[in-house]
Amino acid sequence: MERHLHVEINELKQNLLKMAGMVEASIDKAIRSLTERDLGLVQEVLQEDVKIDHLEIQIENQCLSILARHQPVAVDLRFLFAAVKMNNDLERMGDHAVNIAQKSQNLIEEPPLKPLIDIPRMAGLAQNMVKESLNAFVEGDANKARIVCETDDEVDQLEYQLDRELLTYMIEEPKNVTRAIDLMMIAKNLERIADLATNIAEEVFFMVEARTIKHHFDKMDKD
Amino acid sequence: MERHLHVEINELKQNLLKMAGMVEASIDKAIRSLTERDLGLVQEVLQEDVKIDHLEIQIENQCLSILARHQPVAVDLRFLFAAVKMNNDLERMGDHAVNIAQKSQNLIEEPPLKPLIDIPRMAGLAQNMVKESLNAFVEGDANKARIVCETDDEVDQLEYQLDRELLTYMIEEPKNVTRAIDLMMIAKNLERIADLATNIAEEVFFMVEARTIKHHFDKMDKD
Repeated sequence: MERHLHVEINELKQNLLKMAGMVEASIDKAIRSLTERDLGLVQEVLQEDVKIDHLEIQIENQCLSILARHQPVAVDLRFLFAAVKMNNDLERMGDHAVNIAQKSQNLIEEPPLKPLIDIPRMAGLAQNMVKESLNAFVEGDANKARIVCETDDEVDQLEYQLDRELLTYMIEEPKNVTRAIDLMMIAKNLERIADLATNIAEEVFFMVEARTIKHHFDKMDKD
Repeated sequence: MERHLHVEINELKQNLLKMAGMVEASIDKAIRSLTERDLGLVQEVLQEDVKIDHLEIQIENQCLSILARHQPVAVDLRFLFAAVKMNNDLERMGDHAVNIAQKSQNLIEEPPLKPLIDIPRMAGLAQNMVKESLNAFVEGDANKARIVCETDDEVDQLEYQLDRELLTYMIEEPKNVTRAIDLMMIAKNLERIADLATNIAEEVFFMVEARTIKHHFDKMDKD
């Protein structure tokens, strides 16, 4: 019994949204484990990563199965291509949430180095970028995609500021070094999440506008 | 005039090998810019990244075109799927080479912090992983793929050692902090390159053995 291509593509979209929701929740928990100093949330992030990994495999098989049975062309083929890459990007974001939770676990054991202001702000931006890049994808909205790409500069700027500040903590006092580096690594992981959301937005843009702005933005955004 | 699917797949393989060769050369130049304190090599890495980005787009279009015109199934479809993801992974490795070259540019302006032993060793391992993961892909050799996955642990171990050592430099002497962090970031970029080569090897494994070892290895390898 052959099911209609667009029904299956719709199911695929729903699964990608589900995946994005899980990844957003993971980032949120990873950051809250740090701000609320809650080891239970660290454990939840680790457990949910297993589920994210399973869903990635399920979505990839779904894409392969649609390709093999329907042999879609043009717009649908491009959509499936984008779905494969986004799925991969989302799974990597989940890994970055795990990295953040692991650094948070170290930091919880020590007194706080400084009030956490920039990191929750970076995290809020990154989470919103994940959500909006997926909305842009599902709605085929190039304008939303463009806004995500623009927000990436803001995240980079916040990371740069935080790095400068953490450097001064390290230079002032050797016993700050390990905590400052853990915070730096958390910021780096948030910056990578924002980059991956930007990848997704660029895919959407490419899919919708059928042209690539990818490497233009890449140039602005190395490291 | 319809060309035979396997001729086109062969051309795709050649392009992926070319891409991998360019990425390897970029990593090599980025590391030599550091060890030989050569700003000219930094510039070469930046210039070659533009070519890598162009080749990525060309390969992606090649994959889409093969899919649209031949509508391959089973093994060939899985191969094309893997090719899309590898292409993406290779392009990201090129970005990491750029990041390394940029940190190297900072470091060249300062006196050396310490003799560079671990970083060239990490780089050698990472470059070899890139080469062998692509060989495994082209030859469909699951055993080669497995060796790449195993080497990743060695890279992680070297990064861990280097991070510990750099921490002591930072704690000893505040004026070491910025250089030590640049070296740490270079090591982190090499570790990411090794991770991406591991992704490719896992894809090969999946393609060849039709089962996924991906998330098993992921678990061993976060951060």
